[in-house]
Amino acid sequence: MTVIDFTAFIGRLATASGETILPFFRTSLSVDNKSDSDFDPVTEADRAAEAVMRRLIKASFPQHGIVGEEFGNEREDADYVWVLDPIDGTKSFIAGFPIWGTLIALLHKGTPVFGMMHQPYIGERFSGDSGSAHYSGPSGERRLQVRRCASLKEATAYTTSPLLMNPADRACFTRIENAARLTRYGGDCYSYCMLAAGHLDLVVETELKPYDIAALIPIITGAGGVVTTWDGKPAQSGGRIIAAGDPRVHEAAMRMLNA
Amino acid sequence: MTVIDFTAFIGRLATASGETILPFFRTSLSVDNKSDSDFDPVTEADRAAEAVMRRLIKASFPQHGIVGEEFGNEREDADYVWVLDPIDGTKSFIAGFPIWGTLIALLHKGTPVFGMMHQPYIGERFSGDSGSAHYSGPSGERRLQVRRCASLKEATAYTTSPLLMNPADRACFTRIENAARLTRYGGDCYSYCMLAAGHLDLVVETELKPYDIAALIPIITGAGGVVTTWDGKPAQSGGRIIAAGDPRVHEAAMRMLNA
Repeated sequence: MTVIDFTAFIGRLATASGETILPFFRTSLSVDNKSDSDFDPVTEADRAAEAVMRRLIKASFPQHGIVGEEFGNEREDADYVWVLDPIDGTKSFIAGFPIWGTLIALLHKGTPVFGMMHQPYIGERFSGDSGSAHYSGPSGERRLQVRRCASLKEATAYTTSPLLMNPADRACFTRIENAARLTRYGGDCYSYCMLAAGHLDLVVETELKPYDIAALIPIITGAGGVVTTWDGKPAQSGGRIIAAGDPRVHEAAMRMLNA
Repeated sequence: MTVIDFTAFIGRLATASGETILPFFRTSLSVDNKSDSDFDPVTEADRAAEAVMRRLIKASFPQHGIVGEEFGNEREDADYVWVLDPIDGTKSFIAGFPIWGTLIALLHKGTPVFGMMHQPYIGERFSGDSGSAHYSGPSGERRLQVRRCASLKEATAYTTSPLLMNPADRACFTRIENAARLTRYGGDCYSYCMLAAGHLDLVVETELKPYDIAALIPIITGAGGVVTTWDGKPAQSGGRIIAAGDPRVHEAAMRMLNA
């Protein structure tokens, strides 16, 4: 597989999207609901940032495809496809919590080869190419590395909210909650980055879209972690996701979720 | 009531505690459990930061009292008493999430007259003296002001975790959850600061210690909000707490929790 080094370009996308989003953070926002049944605010910031990134991508790589949360898909059968989520964690965003992020993934023939999570308010970037993963931010720069964790009963687990799960999935997740050392809610993309950084052991979620997870896969695997669907398939299509720092925890969680 | 201006001194406490804590954030930590039944990690950082703040207070104000999470109470019947919680949100801290804070309160004859929440990783300070409240951080400096919210059904509500509540309190909280527009979990001190900043409407918690809430009271009230116990008493002793940006939401929540 030929992988061009897109690192500098992705840095430009992150910088441009961050500059676009920040003026909207912690100000009055115009909020839409995508659907009445599920409170999922979309902000002006989300739209503006995706538009900025699409413009930059089209100018530099007009042959590439783009999949985005806000403006749909273009050339999604191209060899290289960008998958964009300008604000993953919109509920945190509108409540002023700085644990949302901009997700930028580059897929080559369907496989994520580079991913970045950018938190512009804090000034943090988490990136990975499946071979390695890196942090830059207030603490400087460093390599990301998952931590070892021998079993579920020693694991700290995260999910954004059990309320986002359907009743059957929630029942499965409750078994994880009962088995894990500690379960915490919230986090969206931030949880996966903290897993890659070795601060937590397991993230279990459902109903993810491809743009919610694609950028995080090369970060998690680059840091030595494992991420699949609940039934062990590649994660880039979204759906029900298990990410773990230690393969033993991944396997135990997968067994328990499918029991 | 004579209130000396302690602002500059509290700034020094925040700076010193932040410098003490930060080297421990996102590194391997030695973690104690205070009790087996309730996972409540205490870090070296917590202890070191409280020791630093106590030293500064004793050097400048030897006649003042000090109440702290880590090292107990000294001269707690003095006119001026400092109430310290070096890391509120230890579970976020050990999972690498930057939504913990250092809480510093100054009580005069039992009433909180000044409070600060300091998030040193992000470089944010939220402070208040009941008359006004202020933010300084990556977005610059600005006055904190709660937002209006006419009713519970329009309110965004927060609680750190319903799992921290006893079953009876959790049942009461479920009524709030069913009535509110959106309920989110997590946040600890950060939620109260976002309430003061006008990004959310209601925080409901239980089992708080005085050091979990004392510093936040002058910030919330300084920003125009209301904070009491569930039965409408002053909040500084902790226990079951309701904080709201709009008095209408505070009253509705209090009615519903006591129904």
